[in-house]
This record gives sequence, structure tokens and C-alpha cells, in this order.
Amino acid sequence: MSAAKKSDLGVTPLSEDVSAWYNELVFKAELADRGPAKGTMVIRPYGYRIWELLQAELDRRFKDTGHENASFPLFIPQSYLQREADHVEGFAPELAVVTHGGGKELEEPLVVRPTSETVIGEMYSRWISSYRDLPVLINAWNNVVRWELRPRIFLRTTEFLWQEGHTAHATHDEAMAETRQMFGVYDEVARDVAAIPMVKGEKTPTERFAGAVRTFTIEGMMRDGKALQSGTSHYLGQNFAKAFDITFQDESNELQYVHTTSWGMSTRMIGAIILAHGDDAGLVLPPRLAPIQAVLVPIGRGEQVEAVLDRTRELAEELKAAGVRVHVDDRDASPGFRFNDWELKGVPLRIELGPRDLEAEHVLVAHRIGEVDEKGRAVKQTVPMAELASRVPELLEAYHELLLERARGFRDGLTAVVDDFDAFAGQVGVGFALAFHCGRESCEDEIKADTSATPRCIPEEGEEASGSCIRCGEPSAYGRRIVFARAY
Amino acid sequence: MSAAKKSDLGVTPLSEDVSAWYNELVFKAELADRGPAKGTMVIRPYGYRIWELLQAELDRRFKDTGHENASFPLFIPQSYLQREADHVEGFAPELAVVTHGGGKELEEPLVVRPTSETVIGEMYSRWISSYRDLPVLINAWNNVVRWELRPRIFLRTTEFLWQEGHTAHATHDEAMAETRQMFGVYDEVARDVAAIPMVKGEKTPTERFAGAVRTFTIEGMMRDGKALQSGTSHYLGQNFAKAFDITFQDESNELQYVHTTSWGMSTRMIGAIILAHGDDAGLVLPPRLAPIQAVLVPIGRGEQVEAVLDRTRELAEELKAAGVRVHVDDRDASPGFRFNDWELKGVPLRIELGPRDLEAEHVLVAHRIGEVDEKGRAVKQTVPMAELASRVPELLEAYHELLLERARGFRDGLTAVVDDFDAFAGQVGVGFALAFHCGRESCEDEIKADTSATPRCIPEEGEEASGSCIRCGEPSAYGRRIVFARAY
Repeated sequence: MSAAKKSDLGVTPLSEDVSAWYNELVFKAELADRGPAKGTMVIRPYGYRIWELLQAELDRRFKDTGHENASFPLFIPQSYLQREADHVEGFAPELAVVTHGGGKELEEPLVVRPTSETVIGEMYSRWISSYRDLPVLINAWNNVVRWELRPRIFLRTTEFLWQEGHTAHATHDEAMAETRQMFGVYDEVARDVAAIPMVKGEKTPTERFAGAVRTFTIEGMMRDGKALQSGTSHYLGQNFAKAFDITFQDESNELQYVHTTSWGMSTRMIGAIILAHGDDAGLVLPPRLAPIQAVLVPIGRGEQVEAVLDRTRELAEELKAAGVRVHVDDRDASPGFRFNDWELKGVPLRIELGPRDLEAEHVLVAHRIGEVDEKGRAVKQTVPMAELASRVPELLEAYHELLLERARGFRDGLTAVVDDFDAFAGQVGVGFALAFHCGRESCEDEIKADTSATPRCIPEEGEEASGSCIRCGEPSAYGRRIVFARAY
Repeated sequence: MSAAKKSDLGVTPLSEDVSAWYNELVFKAELADRGPAKGTMVIRPYGYRIWELLQAELDRRFKDTGHENASFPLFIPQSYLQREADHVEGFAPELAVVTHGGGKELEEPLVVRPTSETVIGEMYSRWISSYRDLPVLINAWNNVVRWELRPRIFLRTTEFLWQEGHTAHATHDEAMAETRQMFGVYDEVARDVAAIPMVKGEKTPTERFAGAVRTFTIEGMMRDGKALQSGTSHYLGQNFAKAFDITFQDESNELQYVHTTSWGMSTRMIGAIILAHGDDAGLVLPPRLAPIQAVLVPIGRGEQVEAVLDRTRELAEELKAAGVRVHVDDRDASPGFRFNDWELKGVPLRIELGPRDLEAEHVLVAHRIGEVDEKGRAVKQTVPMAELASRVPELLEAYHELLLERARGFRDGLTAVVDDFDAFAGQVGVGFALAFHCGRESCEDEIKADTSATPRCIPEEGEEASGSCIRCGEPSAYGRRIVFARAY
């Protein structure tokens, strides 16, 4: 942290120290705060609104694809976790355990859910008996707990909010189609809503979800070139079906195990948004998730104030009626202070209005990421008041496209094909490396020990190719180059 | 439970045993299920959809009254609970305690939140410093845990879902206005959305929330004449402000404690809906919260099936476009079976369509609670297909009013003014008693011991009056008769 170089608003520049910038910005922009118990977070209204908007986008798509929401218990008997061997191995070190309830020690301790495959497996085994009961397509919005030794708000906290989808199907093919479908929904929401172009692909065996047969992931590139896993979709095969005895009579009256899937996206996505789009001046929010899409800043002194403010409020009403999320900043503070504040908070459009603008019947519109002049100040557009309510939605659409294009350019600029280990080591220091790998776990471990990079995914869009492992020179696995990066 | 007299669908009649009816209906209608850990519940999609619809109605009103949503941690350091004396006394016996996390014993145990006044008090003390920061108007949608020895799905479970509003204000008057405003929102939602006419009033001191100065409640009457507390709003005075040092500089630069409020409504409301409206045939859902408002049942055999089904689907699309939540029941089962099933599930309107109706271009509409003929079967209305999409929304509006009127008549019919203790004891066995009370806790205790009835509230709409205590004959307190009842 270099206090001397902080911006006017007290945030270390991103270009200088990403970690300090992130931590300070989260507090300063009032997105979140630390909770009293170690590793817990408080999501403040400005941050929570982003989550609500993201929830609405996801939930609509879940329902459109035939899913219904439900609620499963927070507490799971400890013995349940042990029924699926890989699952317990993966989650045991992260569990929070309730040993006392109602003033007494419990006979069997209860685990606070780290994820709900086990308890949902138990319920599905009760509910499913015939092929007529399938598929079961359920999602739950809830909170889960995974003990974190090095918590980081949004990215890694002991408790986080998410959705977990859990489905059961008669066949492998149906379950795989579901796994891919939801993976597609995550990619679409990341791109079309959060303006983050993801690298889509399958996880290598070491990086799979504990208990999954196949795991698919979307990986975003953050401003420091690191990867952030932002949503995963798992084909669980019959692992949980066998552990929880989820069977059905098929059409020929034979007893079969179902095939299950699970998929989740969490409040981590807020971290992805901060780290994928932010800059030295603060947050840069994608318009479709911005709690405030356009802030109106009335400017004027003395007698003029009233008239300017009245007109500002009228314009705000017009914008609201046009479906724009607006806010009028009528604080008694300098324009400069207010401009900086809304830049820090990442509001896409700032609409300024002073006494002269009132006379001319126009406003000035500044874009958070638009053109800047030689002094680094936003170039402002003049928009007639009469056109504002129709122009702002268009400007927001264009803003989304620009932001996505910018993120895509950034990601592609920091992604490189590498064929020797020195180049690889350099590349994972700045971005994503596309490299051949032998597929052996011990070789992955060595790469991680030397470079801190891990395989992020076998990219879906990669060309078919083969070569020598970047590390050991053995023949490559996976039929293509895979993505390596340091990750959050 | 009297299995012999169960209805076709296997549910004990309400008129015979309310408790068995409730427990069986919750499972049979697929509203909910028991979770594996004692006292926990699973809310199934059909029940959860009711909750989602209720959430949307509440959330819109919270936002319209200036509140924002946020998220606070599930885990609270145990020492926090102890800072407000009444609060810890009230909640200590119901706590679930996490003693181990990440494989280690914790230095300080963590309590799973039973409600969040304490942790929110701590956060507010960090966020509030000036009168300019007030009011703080925040709500949270989350889960809380209160250990239950005799759990009952929706009514009393170890974990439940709810919203908890928490606000901080500069003055007593502002905080009281907020407390009353949210109390009014609950009453409005219960009446205008859930079709339950509530008795609104203030709790007597013994029944206040642990830590509150004043508690306001809405109490619904269930089909067995018992009361169900369905939503509460608390003025907390400066109790939590003092316990958590929530202070602000007022306009004259003096340090003051804030005044806080909290208010909550939970998944218990689903229990209220079941118990306020249900009948021997099953659920009766209020149209504004019904997951399915109208079910279309195509009837026909052989060659006719296809044509009837096609037309049914077209009508369903038209209804959907008119904003109606519809479902087409195309199961290969007898009309009788399907009719009973949707009656059990409480769907307001059933729309039947057979080959002859197809020719006549009309449908038959049966109301779940409309007129019945001498055999107890619903009288069906004939509605031309061309008018269906405009008529159904009107029918649903009328249905809501009818249901509310029915519940009001039921409640008023089982509410009586009583002036002697024998009449009182009889009255609380069937409904609500309006009686004078001296206001002494020991006298309340005696009434409870003798009759199982407790004071539900000092009704807001009661006439000013005074008299002798129904139990001890001493002069009455509260300036009016108060409501006594047995309660869930």
C-alpha cells in the first residue's frame, strides 16, 4: 500500500498494487465490509443490489430452461458427508460443525452445508421412484460455509451466497446435456450481462469438483492477468445416486440409478466484475448490473439551485419511466467531489446539468469508460433534454458492447501460445498461457510449485492439436492446448 | 389419525383432526418435507413458489418505502449475544453453536444467527457517525436458526427463511413511525395478497420480542380457532444502540444514540395460508400467491385427445399472455383423479375442456371455493373460449375477495366479547376472546395454566373501555379489551 499515491478518494491505484486497490475499493465504494467473525462478510446495499440484478438474470434463465426453486436445510448430519468418498475428502478440511443445540451437546454433530449434494441426494432418493418422476430440475438460492484461512471479500469467504442447481435424469446423455446447458447459461450471463468474456472449458481431473465425473468451468481474466473461476457445472454420473440410493423403475420395470448434475454461481461474480473491469479511478460496472446506470448531477449556486434541481428531478422521472436506474445527486458538495465519487462507484453514465444547460435545454453526458481528452478527463456529449430518455438506453447498450470489447481485447492481448517452459513461466506471470500438457498430476504439481500456475481448463474452442508437454516433454493429452494461469 | 376416514387422496379431513390434516396435507400437496437433521425442513418447489410470490410482494413494498437489501453473516461471535440482557435471555435456550471450523476447535464459539440485531448493531456502529448518515433503512432476506424441541413444518422449525428489516433513526418519533409503517405493510400484504384478515395490535409486555421496547403484531385466525402470529414489527428504543454503541453527531454536534427498529415475516406465512383457508379437500390457495392460478384439464379419449389437447395448449398460451399462471394437466389419468389432485393442491380455478366443449367453443370453469350443488360438487360456469383470457383475471380478482370475505366471516363468527371466566375458558377453546385484563404477568400465567390461552394483542381497532380483569377482577389495564387465544 502506498498511501502517498492514493487517488483523491483514498484508493491505491490499480496500476500500482492490485491487491491493495481491490481491498480498499470494496470498502470505499461501500460494496461490502468484514463481518465480526473471521472470514465472514457483510454485503452492503450497493454490492447487494448487483447481486440481486445478477440473481434476476440467472433466475429467469433457470426458469426458462424448466427449473424450479426450492430450499434445503442448512444443517447436514455429519455422516452424510462421508457417503461419497471423494466428496468428503474434498470438503472435510473446510467444514464448520455445530456440536451444541438448544443448550445441549448433540448426539451427532451437524455440518453447516458447504454444498448440498448429500442432503439433496437423500431427498431425491425419497422423491424419485419411477421414470415418470424424471427429470427432477431444481435450483436453490442460499448460503454455504467453507472455512477459509485466508479470506478475501467476494473471492474467498467463510460464508458466501450462491445458487446451486441439482438435477436428476434417467440417462447419461440427458444429464450431460443438462450439464452443458447450464454451463452455457453461465457463459451467456457472464458475457451478455456482466460483460466478461469467459474462457469456457472442461477442468482437468485434478481440478474437478469433489465427487464429479466431469466439471465444466468459465474462467475470466482479471486486470492483473490472473484467472478467476466464475461458475461451474458438474456431471456427477451415478456417484451420488449410488451413495444415496437414488433409483427409479425404468419403462421396462428395471431398477436403475439416476444420473445427477450440479451447477453453481456465487457472489464471487461480484469480485469478478470488480477485477475484470475496474481501473485507477475505481469500479467500472457493467450497465446491466449497475445499481445506478445514470447519475444526474445538478450544478449551480444560490438562486439557480432550485430551478436546476427541479428540472433534474423531472429528467430523472423521465429516465425512470424509460426503465433506467437513475439517481439524483443533490448533495451540497463540489461538482469535482461528486464526479470522483460516482467514478469510484463505477456508474456508467454521468449526466450534468447547470444553469446554462437549463437555458440551452440540453445536458452533458460523460461516460465512465468513454473517450478522454489529453488531460485524461471524460469527453462529454451534449444531448438535448427532449431526447435524453430515448438516448440513455441506447448509450447504455453501446456502453455494454464497448466494455465487453475492451475486456475481450485485454484478455486476448494477455493470452499467448507458448512452447517452451521459460516462455511459459513468463507468460503465466502476466496472463493466460496456451500450452500442451501430458495430463499427469505430478507434472501439474511441478508446474504449480515452479510458477504458481494451474491448469484452468481444456478450452472448448481450442483447435485440435498435439505436441510435447510444456514441462516434461512427454506427448500431450487432451487433444489440444490447455489454458494455464495463476488463479484467485 | 383416522386412516379409515381419509379422503380419496389420503388426507384426514380437516373437520376431524386439524393436526393430522395439516401434517398429511403438507406432504401430500408436495409443499414441504422433513429434512434429515431433526427440526429442519425442505421446502419443495410447489411450496417455495408460494414463498417467492410472497417475497416479491413484500420486497416491492419494502423498496417503495425506501429500503434496500443487504446481507449479514450467518455466524455471530457468542459474546455479541450477551451484550443486550433481555435479548440473550430470550434467545440463549434456542441457539445452535459452531464450536469447530476447518478441523480445529474455535477459540470463541460462533452462534448461528437466531436473528441479527447484534451483528447488525455492530455494523451500524461502524457505518453511522453523523445525522447525515440517518436514517439507515435496510432489509435482509435470509435463514435463521432457533432450536425447536417440537418442530412443525412452516410453523416452528429449527431453521426457517424470513426477511428481517433493521433501521436506525435520529429520533424516537421517526423510529416509531417506521415501526408502524412496516406493521402496516405486513397487515396489507396479509389481507390484500394472502387474503387473511389479521387482528392488528400491540403485544403486552410479556409477549414482546426479547430486547424490544414495543412490539406490534398481526394475528391470524386459523381454521381451528387458534391464533397464528404472522408478522411482527419492533421499536427497539436505544437498547441495541447502547449495547453496540451506535451513536451519531446531531445537527448541534452533540453525540446521540440512534433509535432502532426491526421487523420480520417468515415462511411461517405459508403455514398461515394453509391453516386459514384450507378445507377437507385440501389446500385453498389465495390467487395472488397460487403457483398455479388456473389448471386446464383436457378431457377425451382416443382420436379426440389430440384435438382437445391442441386447443387446450392454445388457450393456456392465451392465458399466459394475459398474465395468468397456468398449467396444462395432460396426464393420462381419469378426470376425477385429476380434479381431486388439483383440489388438494388448492388451485383456484379449474378449466375443463372436452370434445363437445371444443365443438361449442366454450370451456367449463370450476371454482375451488365457489358454489356447490346438493352433492357437494362445484357448480361449473360455461365461458366462451374467446372470452377466457379476459374473464379469468376477473374471476381471480373476485375469488380473492370471496376468500377474504369468507375468512373474515369465519374470524368474526369465532370472536366474542366475554366478561366471565367460564365463558372465557369456553371461548378460547373455539376462537378469540375479547376480555379485560389487569396487565399483571402472574395473572397472565394463571390464565395460561388454566386455559392454554395467551394475550395475542391489544387490538388497534378496539374501542376505549375499562372494566374488571377477566381472571382476578382487578381494574383493567390497556384502556380496552385485549385479544386472548390459544396460539400456534
